[in-house]
Amino acid sequence: METMRWEDHKLILINQVKLPEEISEFICETYQDVVYAIKSMVVRGAPAIGAAAAYGMALAVLQCKDKDLDACRTYLHQAYQELATTRPTAVNLFWALDRINILINNCVSVEEVLAKVPEEAHKILQEDIIINKKIGEFGEKLIPENATILTHCNAGALATGGYGTALGVIRAAQDAGKNIKVFADETRPLLQGARLTAYELMHDNIPVTLITDNMAGYVMKKGMIDAVVVGADRITARGDVANKIGTYSVAVLAKEHGIPFYVAAPMSTFDFTLISGEDIPIEERDAQEVREIYGQAIAPKEVKVFNPAFDVTPHHLISAIITDKGIIKDPDENAVRQICEIKG
Amino acid sequence: METMRWEDHKLILINQVKLPEEISEFICETYQDVVYAIKSMVVRGAPAIGAAAAYGMALAVLQCKDKDLDACRTYLHQAYQELATTRPTAVNLFWALDRINILINNCVSVEEVLAKVPEEAHKILQEDIIINKKIGEFGEKLIPENATILTHCNAGALATGGYGTALGVIRAAQDAGKNIKVFADETRPLLQGARLTAYELMHDNIPVTLITDNMAGYVMKKGMIDAVVVGADRITARGDVANKIGTYSVAVLAKEHGIPFYVAAPMSTFDFTLISGEDIPIEERDAQEVREIYGQAIAPKEVKVFNPAFDVTPHHLISAIITDKGIIKDPDENAVRQICEIKG
Repeated sequence: METMRWEDHKLILINQVKLPEEISEFICETYQDVVYAIKSMVVRGAPAIGAAAAYGMALAVLQCKDKDLDACRTYLHQAYQELATTRPTAVNLFWALDRINILINNCVSVEEVLAKVPEEAHKILQEDIIINKKIGEFGEKLIPENATILTHCNAGALATGGYGTALGVIRAAQDAGKNIKVFADETRPLLQGARLTAYELMHDNIPVTLITDNMAGYVMKKGMIDAVVVGADRITARGDVANKIGTYSVAVLAKEHGIPFYVAAPMSTFDFTLISGEDIPIEERDAQEVREIYGQAIAPKEVKVFNPAFDVTPHHLISAIITDKGIIKDPDENAVRQICEIKG
Repeated sequence: METMRWEDHKLILINQVKLPEEISEFICETYQDVVYAIKSMVVRGAPAIGAAAAYGMALAVLQCKDKDLDACRTYLHQAYQELATTRPTAVNLFWALDRINILINNCVSVEEVLAKVPEEAHKILQEDIIINKKIGEFGEKLIPENATILTHCNAGALATGGYGTALGVIRAAQDAGKNIKVFADETRPLLQGARLTAYELMHDNIPVTLITDNMAGYVMKKGMIDAVVVGADRITARGDVANKIGTYSVAVLAKEHGIPFYVAAPMSTFDFTLISGEDIPIEERDAQEVREIYGQAIAPKEVKVFNPAFDVTPHHLISAIITDKGIIKDPDENAVRQICEIKG
């Protein structure tokens, strides 16, 4: 499952809005195409939008061929700004853009910019797959044999450069011969669980059962769930986790039922400038996402809607954060700091 | 808002499958039409399906004009059986059918059956509205001024003979000048919150904000909710409550946030033959309800689905059950028994 690829100076995205009914590509020829793709969720998932934004900068660079270094930097700064304001919550977006930006600032010629930015974007994408494999390796050790795992939203190959974070852990456990079963929350409003997670897991022959979000408590109470594994869009220095709306409810339910609750994410998801998750900006999206499904009205047209796209799970509800550097058990400021000190 | 009416020997139902996009009627001329209407959720909500089933018996009676008493009883027994197996969880269905059945057993002639059964069906419907008003009267005292109330599914006029149980409490609080606001969970898979609760409350000019089910925890954590009020499909002798899937998750979340969790239901919702809610049969419905919305696929066509229509909230998560006989605070076997001893 290839979320994105670079071909003939274009970024080719699998169009995730259309999945699973239609497997189609969305071709970005300019950074503005990437801005649109991120905003409209053609590409989504924190690591994937990081990589896509980096390629957005690579596309912007293509417009600089005939510019001098100053004009090039001005143009790229504009692209940076527009890409950075596509979505406010996932920090990987800023992490990837800053990485490209530092590179640009260190370049002494337009030629250098032209050569190095696309290279760096490739690196970000390729590294992400390696990172996910590492997360899987660490994480699968937490998963018992014959476990049934609940997941929310899609933290899979489609949310990343490939393999996935939460689904990477599940894939690694399956590859280790552990006979894993998955329950996938459908994840309203945009149904990433129903559309993407179910699709990915069926594609890999991992048994998956789809439920609506409000069934999570019931399946836990019935003893059907052994562990929860989810992804993350931003993690603070003390281990508070912003992730897709509904994650917090699942974490509270997991605690009530004594079920371990794991977050799987690369180190690039950490925002060390924040301590409390309450300080993470939460994107609110259009009311139509709730009032309609595929253009079909499901509520009175004028009904008021509240549509936060993310919520924050405080660290005390999290059994462990699974990173590419290792596992942060019972996350808090100390435990997070310790993992950062690991070289690698 | 008139859920059902009896006109020219026909039961006219508002077609709740079509709401809110289309306000249309579903006309039942035979008890088999009522069987279909209950199964397909043209009419839903525990008290409403009780009243509809009673009218189903009234329609069956119309077929008995030319029968002798034995043949009439045999035919009505068949109708009773078919109506009783439409849906397994809500106990009001059996309560209403049994009330009609006892009446039939006491009749000494077909003429008496012909006269008394429709009369009893009217009585069940009319009593239900009075009962809801009483629930509202008792319940509104629990609701503070300027409260924002979260509700799940639709326990409104459309779920009852009129006025509603949970929404009856909200209407009574609003009528008492308390300046109430409501958050409505959309209630997947069949979206009764989005389609029916939002519609009803907008119709009555009660401010309502629609959220997806997985946002309930977030709005509670943000301090936006002062109380939860829901309906019930069956309540055991110790106060365990079966209600629409997702209710249990909301109750766990309410407890986590110290928010009072109220259940509003008529005494006919109690099933005194059961102590533990774990013994309540939980209906599982068709996978297509989860895989599709209005016929639009939202998941891989072949994905496995689990679709329980109800869950059980244990009594210890419930702050009070609001009945037409009064309020059962901190429900348990003793507290439930005490309310039953109140004459009225």
